Amino acid sequence: MALYTERLMRHLDAVEQAITAALPKAEGDEVSVAPLMAYACEGGGKRIRPVLLLEFCHLCGGDPQKALPFAAAIEMIHSYSLVHDDLPCMDNSPLRRGKPSVHAAYGETMALLAGDALLNRAFEAMLSPQVEIAPDAVIRAAYELAHRAGIHGMIGGQVLDLACEGKRIDLPTLQTLQEGKTAALLTAACRMGAILGGGSEEQIRQAGEYGYYLGLCFQIVDDILDVTSTAEELGKPVGSDDENEKSTYVSLLGLEEARRRAADYTRQATESLTAFSEERTDLCALAEALLVRSH
Amino acid sequence: MALYTERLMRHLDAVEQAITAALPKAEGDEVSVAPLMAYACEGGGKRIRPVLLLEFCHLCGGDPQKALPFAAAIEMIHSYSLVHDDLPCMDNSPLRRGKPSVHAAYGETMALLAGDALLNRAFEAMLSPQVEIAPDAVIRAAYELAHRAGIHGMIGGQVLDLACEGKRIDLPTLQTLQEGKTAALLTAACRMGAILGGGSEEQIRQAGEYGYYLGLCFQIVDDILDVTSTAEELGKPVGSDDENEKSTYVSLLGLEEARRRAADYTRQATESLTAFSEERTDLCALAEALLVRSH
Repeated sequence: MALYTERLMRHLDAVEQAITAALPKAEGDEVSVAPLMAYACEGGGKRIRPVLLLEFCHLCGGDPQKALPFAAAIEMIHSYSLVHDDLPCMDNSPLRRGKPSVHAAYGETMALLAGDALLNRAFEAMLSPQVEIAPDAVIRAAYELAHRAGIHGMIGGQVLDLACEGKRIDLPTLQTLQEGKTAALLTAACRMGAILGGGSEEQIRQAGEYGYYLGLCFQIVDDILDVTSTAEELGKPVGSDDENEKSTYVSLLGLEEARRRAADYTRQATESLTAFSEERTDLCALAEALLVRSH
Repeated sequence: MALYTERLMRHLDAVEQAITAALPKAEGDEVSVAPLMAYACEGGGKRIRPVLLLEFCHLCGGDPQKALPFAAAIEMIHSYSLVHDDLPCMDNSPLRRGKPSVHAAYGETMALLAGDALLNRAFEAMLSPQVEIAPDAVIRAAYELAHRAGIHGMIGGQVLDLACEGKRIDLPTLQTLQEGKTAALLTAACRMGAILGGGSEEQIRQAGEYGYYLGLCFQIVDDILDVTSTAEELGKPVGSDDENEKSTYVSLLGLEEARRRAADYTRQATESLTAFSEERTDLCALAEALLVRSH
């Protein structure tokens, strides 16, 4: 089952170009973190956050072209978080998507600064004088990202994750943790798209709900694949959660209940979009495809 | 010679309150980086960037009260850069302003995330729906900060500094390095204040020039104090630049020429403010006080 429909594939192409356009150019032989920033954002990922952002902009009647700096920005925020997550003092991961992680390739100090630079650059891109979006929507969308990427969103989730390391945690704690780590940025992506597309308050709300349930479902499926996949299918070691004695949806709920819950979240995601036109079926197909994905 | 006149002292008081207001509240016994963010922003510093921001807002006829979230934001950006600078993979400093640095007090992982959270929070503060500044000015001022804190400003300077570690560098390289590391954020502070205060393009330009020269002068005086002060006066070890074989304005120019150049920059800073009212004398006094400071 293909992840993206034809229109979403066009968004994906646009996203790749937007990221390249938003990154700083490496100038000559000067020492710079620009190459590290580009390396950290290089393809391989699904680009799901920026694709969702552009699709919600489209569904609300906006021009996705004009939302591209915001699409690039949310991917840069996602990328910076991976660069810092991989650092020795965090997960100490030498690999990311099968390639050396940024610090493994360029050293720890430069990786730290490249992450900082990506986070900073995301806001530079959204607030640039070249953005052709009404000022009120620019501010609201950029605030949305700042708010959900920060201490009450993604960073909050990372902090909670660290605090829970090596401990058995309960389901509400796992839920709170994943709301921050995974769902917050997906919620932001969908809401930002609706805001930039000039959507109604109800559309913005529903977009956020879709992103929220998609995020939680995404994480449960990750947990399921960790116990049911082969390493070959997954492209990374399996069973790592169990090895690390990490509490996951599967360890807390069992495989069957985790599957049921994932299906339930997918249904809630697809059913939340009543305020959108028939074209919303692309997003329903995406949610279904993410549910049955094998890697 | 006091650093701040009476009006600037009032700005300083307002800044302290604004930082407290802009930081996230630590909630109960929950694990959080909120206390680390507060610790990183705790007093002791001169708060020169936010004070300048408020003063230029005032000089342009704006209401400094309304600019407070931006004043807090630039101090949070400055603070995050110190937290990350102190990390083991950067300067590995156990102390900052005579207290344990954030990672020394709370561990490396949490310090990394606290720095990220401060950088992120700065934008959250400026873009908050509660800000009472015209949207165009909000975007322009926040962009100013994003631009000058990033790869073409402060982070660029840090990267160049790392690349020059343990090497003898020439004066143009040192100048470029300090333009990024020190002058960029001071330039941003002054320009942001003028933008938020509704200043003319000429006032914004002159404000930036003042900040730029003040920043360069500040660094030269730092280099001079490192060789002429006693540790007691300076509150930190002296002669550390020489010990680290670090190229400084003093090592490249000699003490007398460095002094001459510092005085020259101070003059350029104070003479750049022709588009402002007589009240600009407070800023001239500040520039003079920074030139003759002993710590």
